[in-house]
Amino acid sequence: MALADRWLLPDGVKEILPPKARQVEVLRRRLLDLYDNWGYEQVMPPLVEHLDSLLTGVGRDLDTKTYKLVDQESGRTLGLRADITPQVARIDAHRMSHEGANRLCYCGSVVHTRAENMLASRNPLQLGAEIYGHAGIESDVEVISLMLETLFSCGISDELSLDLGHVDVYSGVVAQASMTDEQNKRYHELVQIKALPELTEFVASLAVDSSISKMLLALPRLNGGIDVLESASEILGLASSEVKQALAYLVKLAAIMQKRYPQVDLYIDLAELRGANYHTGVVFSVLSPDFAQAVAKGGRYDGIGKDFGRPRPATGFSTDLVTLCDISANIDARLGVLAPAGEDASLLKAIAELRAQGVRVIQQLPADDHEATLHCDRELVQQADNWVIVPSDRNLKLKN
Amino acid sequence: MALADRWLLPDGVKEILPPKARQVEVLRRRLLDLYDNWGYEQVMPPLVEHLDSLLTGVGRDLDTKTYKLVDQESGRTLGLRADITPQVARIDAHRMSHEGANRLCYCGSVVHTRAENMLASRNPLQLGAEIYGHAGIESDVEVISLMLETLFSCGISDELSLDLGHVDVYSGVVAQASMTDEQNKRYHELVQIKALPELTEFVASLAVDSSISKMLLALPRLNGGIDVLESASEILGLASSEVKQALAYLVKLAAIMQKRYPQVDLYIDLAELRGANYHTGVVFSVLSPDFAQAVAKGGRYDGIGKDFGRPRPATGFSTDLVTLCDISANIDARLGVLAPAGEDASLLKAIAELRAQGVRVIQQLPADDHEATLHCDRELVQQADNWVIVPSDRNLKLKN
Repeated sequence: MALADRWLLPDGVKEILPPKARQVEVLRRRLLDLYDNWGYEQVMPPLVEHLDSLLTGVGRDLDTKTYKLVDQESGRTLGLRADITPQVARIDAHRMSHEGANRLCYCGSVVHTRAENMLASRNPLQLGAEIYGHAGIESDVEVISLMLETLFSCGISDELSLDLGHVDVYSGVVAQASMTDEQNKRYHELVQIKALPELTEFVASLAVDSSISKMLLALPRLNGGIDVLESASEILGLASSEVKQALAYLVKLAAIMQKRYPQVDLYIDLAELRGANYHTGVVFSVLSPDFAQAVAKGGRYDGIGKDFGRPRPATGFSTDLVTLCDISANIDARLGVLAPAGEDASLLKAIAELRAQGVRVIQQLPADDHEATLHCDRELVQQADNWVIVPSDRNLKLKN
Repeated sequence: MALADRWLLPDGVKEILPPKARQVEVLRRRLLDLYDNWGYEQVMPPLVEHLDSLLTGVGRDLDTKTYKLVDQESGRTLGLRADITPQVARIDAHRMSHEGANRLCYCGSVVHTRAENMLASRNPLQLGAEIYGHAGIESDVEVISLMLETLFSCGISDELSLDLGHVDVYSGVVAQASMTDEQNKRYHELVQIKALPELTEFVASLAVDSSISKMLLALPRLNGGIDVLESASEILGLASSEVKQALAYLVKLAAIMQKRYPQVDLYIDLAELRGANYHTGVVFSVLSPDFAQAVAKGGRYDGIGKDFGRPRPATGFSTDLVTLCDISANIDARLGVLAPAGEDASLLKAIAELRAQGVRVIQQLPADDHEATLHCDRELVQQADNWVIVPSDRNLKLKN
């Protein structure tokens, strides 16, 4: 590599510099404390582990996102984590002895082999919270509430939209159509890109009952406000009981969420496929007008611990802390007190006392005449026998 | 991999579970706040970047410790960071515009291809602080002081020993001996393992002046209390000016550190080679009787930014936060308030208010009768129209 390029980062790999790094740190603490106040215990899984453990019970999508490494100690294949949830599932299944509900949270970097889209970071700072061991709607309500509170805690609360879906709706309708693998794949593609004319043509080519072709055609249009759930129970009236149960679940969930958070718009998307990687039930995400993609997302993934020998119900959400920081309000840079150089005992004592009180004190280094970069608006000066803080006119240099 | 083994972590790879993870989090905040109070700005470099950038200006040792990956976007080789200091050097050299002293700090995971020793973690949580752009003894004094304050802040203060060395002493003496590469390597090995009889034999076999062979033989024995510096100036009296300057520097540094921290034992090791990977001047480490290796270490690495086009003086230290946590005092587990299940508006309001005050409140999930695992010593109950906190007898279950 040319010398001049040595400092370049790979495309899509991002790093966080001052003052933004402090802002990310502040949000990190605020959110982990929020989860702690809700009873979620923090875990810190490793950056690398056996590939089998990272990919157990999850879809192909995560496999292609995960960097592979060879363990020089054992010769086995390791993975650099692209997602933290499978690690938390392993921890719940094997490392903890909880019989009942187990609330866990985490914050850590992950790495993706390729960016999910043009703007996405390949190394998000994944933050999330999960409940293991509880199958009812109450745990979904709790994690969705905590997902919304996460945004509120970052000052992101205007015009939020909560997207709800359920993987059983799509999979139930498709199962009824008894399509070939090829047809399933084609249908999935057309629904994903919402290509309605092609879809009409494709569905007409299938040898299925008109009630089923009607459902196949309706699915990608079943999104919008909460009244979509009403239309859906009519249009999917002949669907399997699996589909109907999923719809009933969404009706109940939507009512609770609307009551808890009337200020958040509800959006129903019954062809929602995004979370289908390891999700097995309800899927949810939250959108803000300040960001093109979902700001946070999650869902239910019962049975994720099965391959670790302990299938337990599970529900949770995750987000990228850097994205949250980008769309939240800025915090002010922290200004300090500039202290003179030297080993004078009374000076060192005064500096230590101020720092212990939480004051930022920068002791000047000799021959360092670039204090303007140090962000100090006060100075420590000796008056009679005391060290006192006075406003600094060097501050003007900083401001100009 | 057998199903039953899927949950095993690779040898030497560690993860942090509750309640220790919270303790690591508490120390992380305390130490980053300490650095912030000293004027160090936090940076968050990425887990992966171009291998050339990670290994620029550093020794072979770091190369073999670093996992290599192929960037699927560019085909170029990436490295999974094994050390954060080269990244911080790149940030100082290229991403920031400071002309004077630049104080930076960080906390993040690194991964080593192999453990440094039987007990070492392959994924330490590296925490450190560095000053770029200042060449004098004052910046070394500041980072060594901050390294000691790091330990004090973790409650580690008994029988600490501060090790001081200087890479110019060893390299200056060796340069005077004009040995072949082969001989240099052999001498290095023998000094490292302090194999004195073999060393005597080896030095006798060299065709060098008696004054030089005396120095070569003395070097591995020049360690101990601060009086070693006095013996050294006698024994190395015929050494080059480079060696003498290094000794004079250590005398001055030792005097300042002894005055600042009289409670810390000083230990001088003039054959100290540990930091030689990218260090160019003074090297230092701190030892505690509770841990077999150095708890924190660092040194001066002037010119580390050279290959990024901006050589600047640099000095700093780093430590493993997990090790610090292991040898510091335990913090108490956080107990919470157990609230009943339900969507009652007054209940949800009471819970939200308590959480906003920083109280941990866990809302019970229906059919979850394992509250004992939730670590609650109080309950939220309705009395007349109010929700009040009462001590919980379920706490007994937890304690028993």
